[in-house]
Amino acid sequence: MYCPLPISDYPNVLLAHGDGGRLTQDLIEHVFAPAFANPQLAQRHDAAAIELGGTRLAFTTDSYVVTPLFFNGGDIGTLAVNGTVNDLAMAGAQPLYLSAGFIIEEGLPMETLQRVVTSMAQAALAAGVTIVAGDTKVVDRGKADGLFINTAGIGLRARAAPIAPSAVRPGDAVLVSGDLARHGISILALRESLEFERPIDSDCAPLWELVESLLNAGVEVHCLRDLTRGGLCAALCEIAETARLHIAIEENAIPLREDVRGACELLGLDPIHVACEGRLVAFVAERDRARTLALLRAHPLGEQASELGRVEQAPSGQVVLRTMVGTHRVLDRPLQAQLPRIC
Amino acid sequence: MYCPLPISDYPNVLLAHGDGGRLTQDLIEHVFAPAFANPQLAQRHDAAAIELGGTRLAFTTDSYVVTPLFFNGGDIGTLAVNGTVNDLAMAGAQPLYLSAGFIIEEGLPMETLQRVVTSMAQAALAAGVTIVAGDTKVVDRGKADGLFINTAGIGLRARAAPIAPSAVRPGDAVLVSGDLARHGISILALRESLEFERPIDSDCAPLWELVESLLNAGVEVHCLRDLTRGGLCAALCEIAETARLHIAIEENAIPLREDVRGACELLGLDPIHVACEGRLVAFVAERDRARTLALLRAHPLGEQASELGRVEQAPSGQVVLRTMVGTHRVLDRPLQAQLPRIC
Repeated sequence: MYCPLPISDYPNVLLAHGDGGRLTQDLIEHVFAPAFANPQLAQRHDAAAIELGGTRLAFTTDSYVVTPLFFNGGDIGTLAVNGTVNDLAMAGAQPLYLSAGFIIEEGLPMETLQRVVTSMAQAALAAGVTIVAGDTKVVDRGKADGLFINTAGIGLRARAAPIAPSAVRPGDAVLVSGDLARHGISILALRESLEFERPIDSDCAPLWELVESLLNAGVEVHCLRDLTRGGLCAALCEIAETARLHIAIEENAIPLREDVRGACELLGLDPIHVACEGRLVAFVAERDRARTLALLRAHPLGEQASELGRVEQAPSGQVVLRTMVGTHRVLDRPLQAQLPRIC
Repeated sequence: MYCPLPISDYPNVLLAHGDGGRLTQDLIEHVFAPAFANPQLAQRHDAAAIELGGTRLAFTTDSYVVTPLFFNGGDIGTLAVNGTVNDLAMAGAQPLYLSAGFIIEEGLPMETLQRVVTSMAQAALAAGVTIVAGDTKVVDRGKADGLFINTAGIGLRARAAPIAPSAVRPGDAVLVSGDLARHGISILALRESLEFERPIDSDCAPLWELVESLLNAGVEVHCLRDLTRGGLCAALCEIAETARLHIAIEENAIPLREDVRGACELLGLDPIHVACEGRLVAFVAERDRARTLALLRAHPLGEQASELGRVEQAPSGQVVLRTMVGTHRVLDRPLQAQLPRIC
């Protein structure tokens, strides 16, 4: 198992510090967490749970630096809306308001900006959110890469009980809402000029309706996590560590399109590390597992939903994958960036 | 008077589209406003006023791309905290929670990041806000400029009555909380390697305490605006246009340090266009003018507060400065960027 080096062994920031792997974790643990320490950040969740004037809110932010700006199934604008919408949904919050901050490189074609802004408006409408605050900065040529977008979001938490890694319990069922790795592969295919029989579209989509259907049905949801940077593996590892529990999953339960599997093999990627932008894992009380699977499958975004495995007491902090041939593999986040700038 | 060209006459984004002048306004009016149209954005204020579960909130965002990262009186971190804190305060909201999104250029010294993060933590403590959500992205060398930071913020609005340009009334007194142009000049002095007898420090500071003192005293505050990009002139022009009223101010009432005045002359800058990061203009009911001045002056950040002038009915949308020699000058935002990337 890899032991992270202290941050002092990295005198400069590397690309891998931003890819959601072990170095990102190091940066958070050694630079951000000590400076900003507070109970909300300690939750290590996609959105902070706060309470204001008796109202239960969720609050989150993400910057988007994806390259190229346009890809099959979306663009930086749809990503910037759905990514933040999904982070709110993962805290069990109905996404309501977004802010949008644009950092534009001088010389960006106005038509490109207009396309992205139009995408954002459409994605916001589809996700039921309103973009109520904005900011634009322009930097000199060569000082950015076309366009970066930050969105922050506010949502209304439906339940008082936390939906967060700390709420995961031994015995919980672990489900995934659909097939993996499509977003990352769609980006990489473009960069590497790979062509497939049918194009592999990003799965970029807003996940609140899926979450809402579980909450409305009274499912005892303990934790939700969307599978962005670092993919399924990073999500499960972080939850196992934060909850100090063990997660056991079955490789043959992981939904994967055949062409995506082929592309991963061709590119030397393990699909469990590749980002999705419209998939979640749900940790629910054991008694709700069958109902959860049925509810997820009833929604177009959850048709491929699958039960991956379950939570156990020990060995704590560990994720184990039972492979198709029956061996057991301990999962860990990769040290090196597999796919920089996919979101 | 300059008439803005339609956006189609700008096939590419220019630096001036980001400097808070006429082209920024064009970009907002022709690209962002049509796509995102909603009542909150139509307010054209520093922070959106929203209501959630019966709680009155303010929500805002800003990205910070200042160069250089460190300057006299602050750095990109203090700016990123105070700038967003002040946008909330300008909506009459107590700043409470911030998010922080970092876009880092590969190769940034870790020590630089740590210095900035420490500054942010100190600034947050001083301003009474908690940084509850964060995100880090790293982009390849040459694809950013060291470090960009986005902060978004949530505040609690103390009053039901809006504090916004639309609430400005004829007869309102216009006050400024202190001397102008220090932030912009401190940045430009560094870039141009100018040396002064005593260094000109940025005025970067959190303004909520000033605002709170007015609200606690029951002053009828109609509008507040901090004087960032575009300075005093851009703030007044935007408010006059949005409120469809006339603003008349006196040049000799504008507080300005002698060395800042000298630096502006040397650099060919008009101080009314130069950014501050710790100054506000307040529009208050006429009967509260003397009390407002006294309250502002009672706070260390408002010692140089001054009454600039008053709001009149017509000519609507116009700001007029009575100069020291008694002539009248119609103010307008400059077309060209005077000072790119000062925040």
